[in-house]
Amino acid sequence: MRTVTEPTTTTPLAERSPEEVAAFLDTQRRAYADLQAQGLRLDLTRGKPSSAQLDLSNDLLHLPTTTRDRDGTDVRNYGGLEGLLELREIFAELLWVEVDQVICQGNSSLTLMHQVLTDLLLFGAPDSERPWRDEPALRFVCPVPGYDRHFTMLADLGIEMIPVPMNEDGPDVVATAALVKDDPSIKGMWIVPTYANPTGAVCSEDVAAALMAMPTAAPDFRIMWDNAYAFHHLTEEEAKSADALTLASAGGHPNRPIMFASTSKITFAGAGVSVLAASAANKAWFLRHLGFASIGPDKVNHLRHVEFFGDADGVRAHMRKHREIIAPKFDAVDAALTATLAGLDVATWSRPTGGYFVNLDVVDGTASRVVQLAKEAGIALTPAGSAFPHGQDPHDRNIRLAPTFPGLADVEQAMAGVATCVAPAAAEKLA
Amino acid sequence: MRTVTEPTTTTPLAERSPEEVAAFLDTQRRAYADLQAQGLRLDLTRGKPSSAQLDLSNDLLHLPTTTRDRDGTDVRNYGGLEGLLELREIFAELLWVEVDQVICQGNSSLTLMHQVLTDLLLFGAPDSERPWRDEPALRFVCPVPGYDRHFTMLADLGIEMIPVPMNEDGPDVVATAALVKDDPSIKGMWIVPTYANPTGAVCSEDVAAALMAMPTAAPDFRIMWDNAYAFHHLTEEEAKSADALTLASAGGHPNRPIMFASTSKITFAGAGVSVLAASAANKAWFLRHLGFASIGPDKVNHLRHVEFFGDADGVRAHMRKHREIIAPKFDAVDAALTATLAGLDVATWSRPTGGYFVNLDVVDGTASRVVQLAKEAGIALTPAGSAFPHGQDPHDRNIRLAPTFPGLADVEQAMAGVATCVAPAAAEKLA
Repeated sequence: MRTVTEPTTTTPLAERSPEEVAAFLDTQRRAYADLQAQGLRLDLTRGKPSSAQLDLSNDLLHLPTTTRDRDGTDVRNYGGLEGLLELREIFAELLWVEVDQVICQGNSSLTLMHQVLTDLLLFGAPDSERPWRDEPALRFVCPVPGYDRHFTMLADLGIEMIPVPMNEDGPDVVATAALVKDDPSIKGMWIVPTYANPTGAVCSEDVAAALMAMPTAAPDFRIMWDNAYAFHHLTEEEAKSADALTLASAGGHPNRPIMFASTSKITFAGAGVSVLAASAANKAWFLRHLGFASIGPDKVNHLRHVEFFGDADGVRAHMRKHREIIAPKFDAVDAALTATLAGLDVATWSRPTGGYFVNLDVVDGTASRVVQLAKEAGIALTPAGSAFPHGQDPHDRNIRLAPTFPGLADVEQAMAGVATCVAPAAAEKLA
Repeated sequence: MRTVTEPTTTTPLAERSPEEVAAFLDTQRRAYADLQAQGLRLDLTRGKPSSAQLDLSNDLLHLPTTTRDRDGTDVRNYGGLEGLLELREIFAELLWVEVDQVICQGNSSLTLMHQVLTDLLLFGAPDSERPWRDEPALRFVCPVPGYDRHFTMLADLGIEMIPVPMNEDGPDVVATAALVKDDPSIKGMWIVPTYANPTGAVCSEDVAAALMAMPTAAPDFRIMWDNAYAFHHLTEEEAKSADALTLASAGGHPNRPIMFASTSKITFAGAGVSVLAASAANKAWFLRHLGFASIGPDKVNHLRHVEFFGDADGVRAHMRKHREIIAPKFDAVDAALTATLAGLDVATWSRPTGGYFVNLDVVDGTASRVVQLAKEAGIALTPAGSAFPHGQDPHDRNIRLAPTFPGLADVEQAMAGVATCVAPAAAEKLA
């Protein structure tokens, strides 16, 4: 994640005289009027793959070619709660974990996360004193900005959220450690460790190690390690995810992390496979309860994916095809923001090397205004504050941009429009 | 469900003299020794479709042929929490409910049932005073014999079970009504209404109406209406499931039933689609919480099934192909038991007109012995008591037979063996 640092001759808006700001605002309002006159209908809200990306996996539509797994088991029938071994092997290699730490399930890792939290509430973890639902209070540390669905899930389940800053190398570990060391009601935290949603930050090995080793008042503290973008590189500078399970064992807390991943942004967003990886105790605990709710996952879809990928290298090769399609869209976001805003000092934005989002921070107190202006110009953005618990951005400055779904030309046009909304909102604030 | 009523010249075992019983036992022990000498390795434990049945759906392996639903939505991408409309329409017709009462989800209706119970525990129903988890006690009425996974799920979730008899026309409604009218801790009950697991009973319209209308002390009483075998006819005498949702509305309790079904025993046991149908309030409640755990089901698999079936008649035609394969196996079970046991009055068994099981009741106190003898002769049966809460059959007389998975010749051989175990166990008891 970098911010705009180019040398420029533009004077930052805040350093200009009131008359200059008024003149700037006037110019920007005319530009915005021109934007509105275009009658756009564009949408940057959704972190979804585009049709061209989905097409990369269309061979899935006529797979698998066989109905038996490597051991001769009929994948069409019931059973196999842990998921197909061949698929588990592929994800073990990709996630740098052991095969016996991995299970594969249905089309949604979000569902796995929800199941884990539900099990914790109803039963407690193997190292819990009681079901979490019986605790007087429950809190989670939430690095912000973060993934809105993580936060809405906690809210629905009645778990309070404590924000900590998401830094360029991962969650603020000093702030986190200070919170968790004395408060036993803080039972866990979220992390998107690699190419975080929405900042693109990559959790460093040092930060991960510190999180896995830090003392916690709760004996059953859990780190929900949502490695949704582990393989979703946008450049040749491919981040390697921190080795959460090994670091946790080394830190004396093997049961602390529960890792999640999926193929939702690898094959078909709605019809892929999900992955959970954890310590032996966590895995046995999860499977024990899962066994009352399922006779096994869709192993036909598992085999379909195994045949499609072949092996872990097949996944890596496949991800390079995604990169070819979406990297230009991220470049277009950066180019459009730079063209209009460079030097004005009214916005910073990420230039992620992976993942699905660009994080745009505008002048404090103007994010909602930018989103409103964009909407009135026909450009749909994720509501301001979405990346914060309860949708409340205390600074009203954060906007999540999702450039993968629209076509490149639409991204260019939409982002030129967004930039045209950022500038007048900033000028209004300063005027 | 019928019991053995043929006129016969055989004298019932219990009416014979001690010497005659001893002689009978001697004969039976020789027959059993001969059985053991065969060195069989047969398995009647699993209510699973056979490979031949699964083969009927192999066209699924190269479907769907398109990636758009009827409205042009890309089924490969995220979204569509309720499931594909075309699939919901098919199941609405098959289950005699309205399309807007139906949602379709992943590969397991068991998972849907578990999600419903989990939501009830954590949040309560729309008509609950509080989350069920906050009640001082929670109980469910459980018709017995019943489906073991229903009971183990309740046990894991900490819900007590109160058995009531499963009659030929459904759960004993007098016993049930007497239990639920004064005890607010009784929050619900299970039913497999059509071709029940394991008895094959079909819940009559009258019994269903009474269950839907009966006064309950709990304002949020729920009937988990697991219509797993709604279309799984074994004869031309096709049972029509009672119209639970309409009866519930007519009875003044529209939110009482939640209906479940799946294609697990229609297409691929492990890779089908599941169905939930309920009142508008129940459905909205379920989807509201589901929306925090899922961005939508596997719509590719939904479309795959829609293309495969075409329409509801396609499902019905498909089920007739299943019937051709499995009806002879059920006939073989009956023939083998009749050949050895008719007239001895040591066993009764169901001759189901649908579903997946034969319910065998042996002399009280001998079911465990029969299962043990069968095991020692190489024939695996479901553990005695499996069809009762906590695996405890108070009479030790019930054995669930599952004849669909083995080939016909294996069913014949295994059932001849089972009959050869029933007789000496009975004679031992009487001797």
